[in-house]
Amino acid sequence: MGMLYNQVADQLQALILDGVYREGERVPGVRVLSRQFGVSISTVLQAHQTLEARGYLQARERSGYFVRRPARDLPEPRMTEQRSRPVPVSAREMTLDLCADEQKRMVPLATAIPHPDYLPVRQIQQSTLWAARRGLETLDYAFPGKESFRRQIAQRMATIGVPVAPDDVLATNGAQEAIILALRALTQPGDIVAVESPSFPGILQALEVVGLRVIEIPTHPSDGISLEGLQLALEQWPLKACVVVPNHSNPMGARMSDERKQQLVSMLAAARVPLIEDDIYGDLFHTGERPRPAKAFDQADNVIYCSSFSKTISPGLRLGWMIPGRHMAAARQHKYFVNLATSTIPQLAVAHFLEQGGYDRYLRSARQHYKESTDRLRSAIARTFPEGTAVSRPQGGFVLWVQLPEGVSGTEVYQRARRENINVAPGLMFSTANKFDNCLRLNGGNPWTGRIEAAVDRLGAIAREVQSGVSPDRF
Amino acid sequence: MGMLYNQVADQLQALILDGVYREGERVPGVRVLSRQFGVSISTVLQAHQTLEARGYLQARERSGYFVRRPARDLPEPRMTEQRSRPVPVSAREMTLDLCADEQKRMVPLATAIPHPDYLPVRQIQQSTLWAARRGLETLDYAFPGKESFRRQIAQRMATIGVPVAPDDVLATNGAQEAIILALRALTQPGDIVAVESPSFPGILQALEVVGLRVIEIPTHPSDGISLEGLQLALEQWPLKACVVVPNHSNPMGARMSDERKQQLVSMLAAARVPLIEDDIYGDLFHTGERPRPAKAFDQADNVIYCSSFSKTISPGLRLGWMIPGRHMAAARQHKYFVNLATSTIPQLAVAHFLEQGGYDRYLRSARQHYKESTDRLRSAIARTFPEGTAVSRPQGGFVLWVQLPEGVSGTEVYQRARRENINVAPGLMFSTANKFDNCLRLNGGNPWTGRIEAAVDRLGAIAREVQSGVSPDRF
Repeated sequence: MGMLYNQVADQLQALILDGVYREGERVPGVRVLSRQFGVSISTVLQAHQTLEARGYLQARERSGYFVRRPARDLPEPRMTEQRSRPVPVSAREMTLDLCADEQKRMVPLATAIPHPDYLPVRQIQQSTLWAARRGLETLDYAFPGKESFRRQIAQRMATIGVPVAPDDVLATNGAQEAIILALRALTQPGDIVAVESPSFPGILQALEVVGLRVIEIPTHPSDGISLEGLQLALEQWPLKACVVVPNHSNPMGARMSDERKQQLVSMLAAARVPLIEDDIYGDLFHTGERPRPAKAFDQADNVIYCSSFSKTISPGLRLGWMIPGRHMAAARQHKYFVNLATSTIPQLAVAHFLEQGGYDRYLRSARQHYKESTDRLRSAIARTFPEGTAVSRPQGGFVLWVQLPEGVSGTEVYQRARRENINVAPGLMFSTANKFDNCLRLNGGNPWTGRIEAAVDRLGAIAREVQSGVSPDRF
Repeated sequence: MGMLYNQVADQLQALILDGVYREGERVPGVRVLSRQFGVSISTVLQAHQTLEARGYLQARERSGYFVRRPARDLPEPRMTEQRSRPVPVSAREMTLDLCADEQKRMVPLATAIPHPDYLPVRQIQQSTLWAARRGLETLDYAFPGKESFRRQIAQRMATIGVPVAPDDVLATNGAQEAIILALRALTQPGDIVAVESPSFPGILQALEVVGLRVIEIPTHPSDGISLEGLQLALEQWPLKACVVVPNHSNPMGARMSDERKQQLVSMLAAARVPLIEDDIYGDLFHTGERPRPAKAFDQADNVIYCSSFSKTISPGLRLGWMIPGRHMAAARQHKYFVNLATSTIPQLAVAHFLEQGGYDRYLRSARQHYKESTDRLRSAIARTFPEGTAVSRPQGGFVLWVQLPEGVSGTEVYQRARRENINVAPGLMFSTANKFDNCLRLNGGNPWTGRIEAAVDRLGAIAREVQSGVSPDRF
């Protein structure tokens, strides 16, 4: 966000990271800083609170703000090497129940589900009430999507560089279904599809549903999928599609630059391999402008765009959409075959919410929340996890990718943590083989509470126990 | 229905069919009939109106009721012969767009979608408003289903002889998705599955989604799937599942007797081939008691029960459920993989509606409507279609299966009718090969209007034109 207090906070944070202010030291008072930065006192107070939220400062009564800890700036995780052969995708058991009802009593660090405090509860309730009053209209099939919903989507797509007509939009049960419909439109069972590595587990599950083989392309924690790696795979294998999350990929939060998006799109167009783009985190950028999707650079109608409102308006709506381009007929047919249509009421409600104009206002506050809560989790990890831990620096969304020191099993940490009712996502879930065993994905989208703080402290301790070979029986 | 006026109507109808009263003749007046049947005058008046609805009587002002036409009692369609080999299922284009938005301006005789006049619009609206007010609860994932919804389903299942716990219920996007999840739990691509013939196109589409081969078992228009045919297939082929609609199968409306259901279940249990039961029309029986599902006779946990509210409460909700029994873990996993969860608000709304107790009251009136409107369509077909036409006598639901005389192409009738904005379902859709070309499925669930009556008259005329080889260009 371009807000003034954030700029002040960023500069102060940089000073802490540079060692200008060290752990336990008091930072200058508000008047001093107000003069130093040429901003108002209240801006400095907000900057202090922001850095407290990020975990760099601690308020002590009547004494001011103190640097909390040697806030290590953890390095970014390393990229993996490219694997040599495509492999069939098979069920990864651990994925399954992360968001099942039974898990809801655990500390929710596993799932990439937005926290209810940051959802537009009042607005969507009003729009749902509005929708419910439509009576007859709510009871009818909405295939291939309610006109009002598709029109609102077309309007939003235009604002991010993708001008489409309402008829170009297909309503789906979330982005997960959109990706499956895209894969069905483009592939036959046994075909090879390229994905990022680490990859969002839902994408691997989608590949499994359609019976595909996968080739994993190393992905940089900030820059996104390796274009060199992808080029190599294009030369070696008869790829039928490539699935990428160019904006704030899950789990790493990478954002490809416009230039790299353009390269990705033209490289795939030249190879006549369609790109399936998942833009589900696009609206949750932390700073700057709304990043454009790869689809905005698609001259050749070679990109199928998929997204949903599950990370913004509500996961429970199960409402997503896709822009299948020239594959519309095939995508429509598959949608009809798998479940006929997407539920009508959620479409009417979201169309109404978007039409009312409250969505962008809501997004502004949600983005700020997620930036702060993710920063704060990042700081807590830096304090509590073992030396040698690396962590992603996401530019959007609300998950963190944690790479434990070599040889420390994230799977072991995951298992021990679950016994203590702390739920995290083990790195193994994000690949088709035994990659990323020393990784974890943590949900940074929770409001910071004592329960979360204690859980992260405990996770760090568990990681250190696993590192030093301490048996869990001793605790 | 066991109501008195229906009994009187049935007896009077039998007298007309037996030729006791002929076309154009006046039936006896209300006083005479009141004495004759030993019932009240108002019961006779209701019986007269019922027979008028069925198309057997016509009221003439101040003159009484007259027999309308030589109400031919059309024979039931013939069963087909068993095919010798399983075949892969491939997309049937004509199925695709029958319920797309673009079709909605046509006369709706094609789809098996309940007419909005017969849906509980007011009740479900109240329950949806109630659900919308739940706020936060509506925004959360409901995997594997909202507790309140699953509890209500468990209560209803107990009343039809299937006592299950809420945890035994998995919420789905309609019965279509339930059938796909059941197939995924039981089969691998390329496996062979037995279905009825003619078969509901959605079941064939589900088989195609999962990549299966099909063996079609001849199905009797009243008694349901041929157990002899199924036994033969069990002996000849390594079947992995059998999909049956035992109650009011679509398209024929057959209802298997309890005895035959029991035989079906034990035959499949002995062969260790699971039964996937689609009971979507179970609540829409025309007479007598709610027929029990095959699952009620399932001693061996060998039946996966699937159903939905798309034919009763609302198609637009996209809300169904399944009882996967010992296959729950696999079905849950596949549900999670394809779209994570079923939309929350429809589950909350339906749970509330069921809890309020209005559902059974609504069903009583819907059943009466569908019985009368289906009877009426049946009479109209008898009047207008060519000699040699046969038509099903459904015991529930609201579709009719029309078998045109040998050599008269239903596909041709379908194509000509569409040009006149009359939408019917061609018989070819109900099989994997060129079976049932001389058949049509008609939706008998519409309130009887001049527009519908004219469309049926025109359909009969088109069928006669096709029969006599008249080119459509001459009209």
